[in-house]
Amino acid sequence: MIDRLIEKIEELKNPSVVGLDPTIEMIPDVMREAAISEYGPTAQAVAEMFLRFNREIIDCIYDIVPAVKPQIAMYEKYGLHGVRAYLETTEYATSKGLLVIGDVKRGDISSTAEAYAGHLSGVEIDGVKYDLWNEDAITVNPYLGTDGILPFTEAIKDLDKMIFVLVKTSNPSSSEIQDLLAVAAGSSSGETDENADPIYVKVAKLTQMWGSELIGSYGFSKVGAVVGATHPAVGQHLRALFPQLFFLVPGYGAQGASAEDLRGFFDRHGRGCIVNSSRGIIAAWKKESIGFPVGDAARKAALQMQEELTKVL
Amino acid sequence: MIDRLIEKIEELKNPSVVGLDPTIEMIPDVMREAAISEYGPTAQAVAEMFLRFNREIIDCIYDIVPAVKPQIAMYEKYGLHGVRAYLETTEYATSKGLLVIGDVKRGDISSTAEAYAGHLSGVEIDGVKYDLWNEDAITVNPYLGTDGILPFTEAIKDLDKMIFVLVKTSNPSSSEIQDLLAVAAGSSSGETDENADPIYVKVAKLTQMWGSELIGSYGFSKVGAVVGATHPAVGQHLRALFPQLFFLVPGYGAQGASAEDLRGFFDRHGRGCIVNSSRGIIAAWKKESIGFPVGDAARKAALQMQEELTKVL
Repeated sequence: MIDRLIEKIEELKNPSVVGLDPTIEMIPDVMREAAISEYGPTAQAVAEMFLRFNREIIDCIYDIVPAVKPQIAMYEKYGLHGVRAYLETTEYATSKGLLVIGDVKRGDISSTAEAYAGHLSGVEIDGVKYDLWNEDAITVNPYLGTDGILPFTEAIKDLDKMIFVLVKTSNPSSSEIQDLLAVAAGSSSGETDENADPIYVKVAKLTQMWGSELIGSYGFSKVGAVVGATHPAVGQHLRALFPQLFFLVPGYGAQGASAEDLRGFFDRHGRGCIVNSSRGIIAAWKKESIGFPVGDAARKAALQMQEELTKVL
Repeated sequence: MIDRLIEKIEELKNPSVVGLDPTIEMIPDVMREAAISEYGPTAQAVAEMFLRFNREIIDCIYDIVPAVKPQIAMYEKYGLHGVRAYLETTEYATSKGLLVIGDVKRGDISSTAEAYAGHLSGVEIDGVKYDLWNEDAITVNPYLGTDGILPFTEAIKDLDKMIFVLVKTSNPSSSEIQDLLAVAAGSSSGETDENADPIYVKVAKLTQMWGSELIGSYGFSKVGAVVGATHPAVGQHLRALFPQLFFLVPGYGAQGASAEDLRGFFDRHGRGCIVNSSRGIIAAWKKESIGFPVGDAARKAALQMQEELTKVL
């Protein structure tokens, strides 16, 4: 979907993605109480309120943003009903023409990664094919190395889908492992800094390799990278080193990064990344300056974000 | 559950865990055809065959092994029905007194990891508490660092549950990132090898720190480590360096490691790890030397594995 994503971003002039990461606390009282009165204090009630909340947001933003990114953890927390709400959300978003980036951060050894790749490839059961997850892209974790990633690249090779590999995440502790300076195992002592790279650069190099045969019409690969907006210098550095890596950028807004921090994440054509905001959009109705109802507030916040981002392009 | 796990291992004299990782290919024809004829070629049929398969295995091994480890990818592949089969499997295993290690390899930034921690802590909805996943432990991915792990340690602090952090995985490509020699960012050049550690040692140090206040009666922590059986020297090295880390050990059997490879993973009391076998047990009915039916074959293979493991203790 890398070409489709770039074209949608340009058509809408909006390099942003709305993170559909609901929590009970984000749901307006009236919506929460309606679900609880209908289903009792159950996971089913939470699933219902998440779904109504997401649908209202999707209805108000589908024509101005290219994609949504539901974070599966928020749904998994509520067990089977939660997962159902995730699936109905991806299905509804797809039906509205939105691209869906499933933020699932899966990663495992080859035979298991093959099963996880079903998120994208679908499954075949006794000759019948199903796409059960309705995701155009998912995020994946690189810690297990190439044999844990190949099943995903194999799955998307002939599909209009993509993956985003976690390279440098937006959270403060990302430095603990991702910033360690690494040399190949077995290197002699007295290694100079020129040969040492932070782990995130090593991972970006692997990510580029994994996607090297999956380049679309605009020069970007179907294997993208997650790079946090909270690390402006890292983003700029990786943009220069890896022109083929399209970035999925979390950390904007609620996590602290501003549009100005993102200037270096784009290339000279104003391409190369899509920026996520979750709370800043979906919980915008709680801000006095924006106000009720949920969907209109999300639209206002999304348009505000678009304006801020396009200023730095 | 660290004390409970150790006591169950000693009571049954069996440091092994059965990986419940079904695939359609592992299901005997008669069981597969029955489900397809009842539900058609659907995900529901696959969920049903997985459940019947798992129940037959659980019925035949629950009195001789301390734990099962369902791999959620195998179920997620089949969407909502698949996740239901996972949940009914964890529920059934729990009802038979087995400890359940959910092999979910989740990991994300703090607010999201908090939601994933619901796997262990359960959820509270309008004052009512639910344990929706029936897992005594789960596996977690360390790539995001401390703030992605603290929500899990917080969740298990006052519960009889635990987590296993991926330290050194069993797959061939695990070397690509996990074996890189790393020094802290900002170290000067000319660093000697004495200060450089492979990433898996850095992660093991973090894992020890994360669990340092969660030590049970036998000196092991509720924060354990995944260390692949396919790396005997690494296992021995980590055992010596980190006496408080209990190891969950994949890679035995079908992936190539033997009992002899595992000698160094145990401490001098014969404690310190639990060894997983998946295909070797649950698909044992396919081996001519063992034969049909599924449950009896799994029991025979599990007893064989127990005998092999106890020889090296």
